Amino acid sequence: MKFFSDNAAAVHPHVMDAIIAANHLDSPYDGDALSQTLDDRFSQIFGTRVRALWVATGTAANALALSALCPPHKGVICHKMAHIEQDECGAPGFFMHGSKLILADGEGAKLTPAEISRVLASIRDDVHQVQPACVSITNASEYGLVYTAKEVAAIGELCKAKGLKLHMDGARFANAVASTGAHPGDITWRAGVDMLSFGCVKNGGMNAEAIIVFEPTLARELPYLRKRAGQLQSKGRFLAAQLLAMLEDDLWLANGAAANAGAQAIAHAAGDRLLYPVDANEVFVTLTAAEAASLRAQGFEFYDWGEMTEDGGEARFVTAWDQDADTVAPLAAAIAAL
Amino acid sequence: MKFFSDNAAAVHPHVMDAIIAANHLDSPYDGDALSQTLDDRFSQIFGTRVRALWVATGTAANALALSALCPPHKGVICHKMAHIEQDECGAPGFFMHGSKLILADGEGAKLTPAEISRVLASIRDDVHQVQPACVSITNASEYGLVYTAKEVAAIGELCKAKGLKLHMDGARFANAVASTGAHPGDITWRAGVDMLSFGCVKNGGMNAEAIIVFEPTLARELPYLRKRAGQLQSKGRFLAAQLLAMLEDDLWLANGAAANAGAQAIAHAAGDRLLYPVDANEVFVTLTAAEAASLRAQGFEFYDWGEMTEDGGEARFVTAWDQDADTVAPLAAAIAAL
Amino acid sequence: MKFFSDNAAAVHPHVMDAIIAANHLDSPYDGDALSQTLDDRFSQIFGTRVRALWVATGTAANALALSALCPPHKGVICHKMAHIEQDECGAPGFFMHGSKLILADGEGAKLTPAEISRVLASIRDDVHQVQPACVSITNASEYGLVYTAKEVAAIGELCKAKGLKLHMDGARFANAVASTGAHPGDITWRAGVDMLSFGCVKNGGMNAEAIIVFEPTLARELPYLRKRAGQLQSKGRFLAAQLLAMLEDDLWLANGAAANAGAQAIAHAAGDRLLYPVDANEVFVTLTAAEAASLRAQGFEFYDWGEMTEDGGEARFVTAWDQDADTVAPLAAAIAAL
Amino acid sequence: MKFFSDNAAAVHPHVMDAIIAANHLDSPYDGDALSQTLDDRFSQIFGTRVRALWVATGTAANALALSALCPPHKGVICHKMAHIEQDECGAPGFFMHGSKLILADGEGAKLTPAEISRVLASIRDDVHQVQPACVSITNASEYGLVYTAKEVAAIGELCKAKGLKLHMDGARFANAVASTGAHPGDITWRAGVDMLSFGCVKNGGMNAEAIIVFEPTLARELPYLRKRAGQLQSKGRFLAAQLLAMLEDDLWLANGAAANAGAQAIAHAAGDRLLYPVDANEVFVTLTAAEAASLRAQGFEFYDWGEMTEDGGEARFVTAWDQDADTVAPLAAAIAAL
Repeated sequence: MKFFSDNAAAVHPHVMDAIIAANHLDSPYDGDALSQTLDDRFSQIFGTRVRALWVATGTAANALALSALCPPHKGVICHKMAHIEQDECGAPGFFMHGSKLILADGEGAKLTPAEISRVLASIRDDVHQVQPACVSITNASEYGLVYTAKEVAAIGELCKAKGLKLHMDGARFANAVASTGAHPGDITWRAGVDMLSFGCVKNGGMNAEAIIVFEPTLARELPYLRKRAGQLQSKGRFLAAQLLAMLEDDLWLANGAAANAGAQAIAHAAGDRLLYPVDANEVFVTLTAAEAASLRAQGFEFYDWGEMTEDGGEARFVTAWDQDADTVAPLAAAIAAL
Repeated sequence: MKFFSDNAAAVHPHVMDAIIAANHLDSPYDGDALSQTLDDRFSQIFGTRVRALWVATGTAANALALSALCPPHKGVICHKMAHIEQDECGAPGFFMHGSKLILADGEGAKLTPAEISRVLASIRDDVHQVQPACVSITNASEYGLVYTAKEVAAIGELCKAKGLKLHMDGARFANAVASTGAHPGDITWRAGVDMLSFGCVKNGGMNAEAIIVFEPTLARELPYLRKRAGQLQSKGRFLAAQLLAMLEDDLWLANGAAANAGAQAIAHAAGDRLLYPVDANEVFVTLTAAEAASLRAQGFEFYDWGEMTEDGGEARFVTAWDQDADTVAPLAAAIAAL
Repeated sequence: MKFFSDNAAAVHPHVMDAIIAANHLDSPYDGDALSQTLDDRFSQIFGTRVRALWVATGTAANALALSALCPPHKGVICHKMAHIEQDECGAPGFFMHGSKLILADGEGAKLTPAEISRVLASIRDDVHQVQPACVSITNASEYGLVYTAKEVAAIGELCKAKGLKLHMDGARFANAVASTGAHPGDITWRAGVDMLSFGCVKNGGMNAEAIIVFEPTLARELPYLRKRAGQLQSKGRFLAAQLLAMLEDDLWLANGAAANAGAQAIAHAAGDRLLYPVDANEVFVTLTAAEAASLRAQGFEFYDWGEMTEDGGEARFVTAWDQDADTVAPLAAAIAAL
Repeated sequence: MKFFSDNAAAVHPHVMDAIIAANHLDSPYDGDALSQTLDDRFSQIFGTRVRALWVATGTAANALALSALCPPHKGVICHKMAHIEQDECGAPGFFMHGSKLILADGEGAKLTPAEISRVLASIRDDVHQVQPACVSITNASEYGLVYTAKEVAAIGELCKAKGLKLHMDGARFANAVASTGAHPGDITWRAGVDMLSFGCVKNGGMNAEAIIVFEPTLARELPYLRKRAGQLQSKGRFLAAQLLAMLEDDLWLANGAAANAGAQAIAHAAGDRLLYPVDANEVFVTLTAAEAASLRAQGFEFYDWGEMTEDGGEARFVTAWDQDADTVAPLAAAIAAL
């Protein structure tokens, strides 16, 4: 069984059905009936009027959102382990035309107001240093921790006080909401988030993500930026269909909860081996080299995280929507038996 | 019946079946089994060793290809009506970091060696003017004309002599190949084309296009550029599946031929009204305002092309893979009856 | 005698004296006493509160100004013969991160409201086409014609109505003001100009130009953009000194008038040979090949303009601040004698 | 007496004389007699065939050089305190179109092969992470330390082995050469440096720096990049004059040595207060708040470095070409007397 990442999991049957059902001639781009309902549907979910634009990848969602929040000569404060810094081949620099990612630190890849303040204090307010325009946080974080509504709000208040925009990378937003039980609006716009990259692919989608814009004026130029980035698909109905299927009957939350439950089962078995609290669907554990080999010999596949030495090291297990507690029971048992 | 564009047509059943069949966990990005066969499969089609990379849109295919062929401080010679100039919201300028599109003219949106030479002669060879690095042609052209292998080769020779790279926008490449009967290799790499944007979406695909690279050294950085542009999908198998389905049993050529046949039927009915030769699947005709209204009253939908005055103007009809001669017969009859 | 361009002329003695006088330790960048007076001094000249930033070249002044007026995904309408399009090696595309120059036509490299309106009407208001954000005009124009205050105001009104910013390339602004006698404010901010590239180098300076910003909010980010573009000199006092010397006792206007007078003398001699009205310090004339050779044999140096054939062609003579009517009399006589 | 920075010092009389002597009409841009000798003159200095291009600022020199060494999708390894990271308002990101500065650590703002190797090892060789293309070191470093020829060569070998280009920011190159006594060629091209930003402004120039290119193929596009960046001055002779004057009779080394001697005198007085070895013309010392106030009360001006608390902190003293040991004796005495 594979625990490399949720990013390559199968597409949920409801999503696939929605794609198949969308296969009829309709207006191109986002002029089709499905795309035209996205704003309304996401507005219901978030409890405020939003603009929702589909794109194909999380990298595009993040980079386009940031390019609308930060001008080319300024910077975005993010965690040094943030996906936008570590795993997007410089997409933010490309989409923002040279803007700088200003790196911060924090436990479990999470930022805090104190850390953001420390970074802000280190930047001289003169023309020689890149000035910050935006903060980006990831929820759930790259190490599987979540921000509570209160934590986001504390960051949001700081941003507002400092004139900074706030972006949330929600590649695993469903896992975060399912984990905290927070209302989607409470951990986003009510907490000061200006734009959200709403993840769908990792949660059972095929190739649709959404940029959710909570501040109408910020949405104005995004359709142009999307087109210019080669992200405006002519048969956009197939992306809208995925997102709508995911929202139907809260499938997105059910999927997120299932993946979280799988992770919890593994975490429970791992006990003291855990490197971080397991809030969402990622589990980081310490393993000796022999233990890692043993698990692999039993058919469990996963990534080493960092360097694995003779004495062992860290391993990452990620669960997907189709790997709930029951499904991962064999892995949990194997870990418990180490 | 809609003749706005082939870009929003239904997905061909074989393509949809291939997508459904790809719905199983596999390696992410382009590490899956399907993506891994793309190079081989396209190499067979073109009769030489190629690199084939999927992306989601034609704009991305064009802009990424050009960004690998032209450095930021140089320019790309293209027709003033080229899609990259007219319809991509500045994507080439974005992907190429400010490179200039150097505009040329030509009947039916086609370039000729003479016109390219004229443009080249107008550029002073000094640091004050943007120097050309590349030529981009569209086959079939934006007005539905095709380049023969010989015509491409003449441009290719000029490019080689002048040290310019040659890109072909093949959003409707299938229509061009089906129309000319040329071997795919003869109107591309054997004629000097360095990169091809291989269209699939307009020809019955869902959201996959391919960048075909005929010169191995030019392919080296493209995977990085694709990732950086937010075009690397984690479930890339669904894009590879579309392209492979399209190549299976030459479905791409059958689809292109069907659309072309539909256009021929309309063209035959249009007679003297034709504004351009109809080589592929686009038909441009002159209509009086009353005639346009009459066709629309009969349920035929199409775009005015340019300004429609009281006295009429030009109209564009585009046929898709599912609009062959039989299917469009009612439109042809209606035009003939005007 | 050389009539290639005013861009390489000697530095006026007053300017050189000011440079020498500035050679003492002072605060770096634009913190020195001279730089700190620039805003006030230029505000006096223009009759309104302006921000004035020195840069080293006209290309930098133009490109920085445009980058503050036009976002990366939009475009700037300019004449197809504009310096920014023809002679800056793509600097606008670089500084504006891929923005497009949208080309217009017009006699003598001048734009008119009618032509701008024609261009605007040709742009579809959808996400597929680059939308305009700005208009740039050159005064005096690349062919030596000037815009009157009334002509600029007509363009300014159109820009305001259409939500476009207005930039003026004033590499030869002194020649234009000296020619029209207009108040500097009347052909700029009172006529709707948002930013002006104020030329000094061609008018007897060494290496200082100024960006004049008439709208305070537009000036806010410019100091950062200047630094980021490598245009913030640490000994900026030497640039400020040049500009202040030029404004002292209206030296800039005296220099512009002298160059204009030289051009008038040539124009008078050229008579029917003139290709354009001579408003400023550039004269374009038709010459046979023999005539051109004869002038050169007499020691007059100048550029052919466009292609010079066996039958002759066009030639350009540019006068500088140190080539007034008396100085150019030999050339005028030689032309009259042809 | 001011010890803020050498960047605002007076221009050396020989340099000023050379500027005055260049005030005659000559060919524009770099076509003048002085600019045309730069390559030869610098080739003599470095003992190999080089290309030398003037620009106005060190930021431009660095950013242009890097843009010729690193494509937009790759990165440059540099020290986290490097000028290009800390003090250029994102110019590298702008000129390189979004390239990333990959930060390394090291005593006194110096890099070592070990540290560069550590950084390289931390970068996964896949499309998700920005791949390095170049290393940039500063000599003398931002903390006034110098690299010996041997130290540079060790880095150069590593770069060569890893396929990386090597850039040297030589804003204070004269101080480094004067300090080490190394042949200019030994600490640059013979040690593997591909391009050097040769500083002149901080060493008694007015507004000219030079990009020295040791690898001919890398120089090919630089003139275009310079023009596109608005750095090609039309009266370039005034920049060439500064550089040539600086090289005449090794004035650059004499100036560097004088500034270094001033720093040594201060360092000698500072004794245990020194934070770093003083190799060049920068001295970092610990001072109590009272001591700092005392020095300032005596008329010595300098920057606090980092945060100055009640208990004191760090201060930076920089000496210029006109602040040799004798000149700074009062400061040295004052420090010794603390």
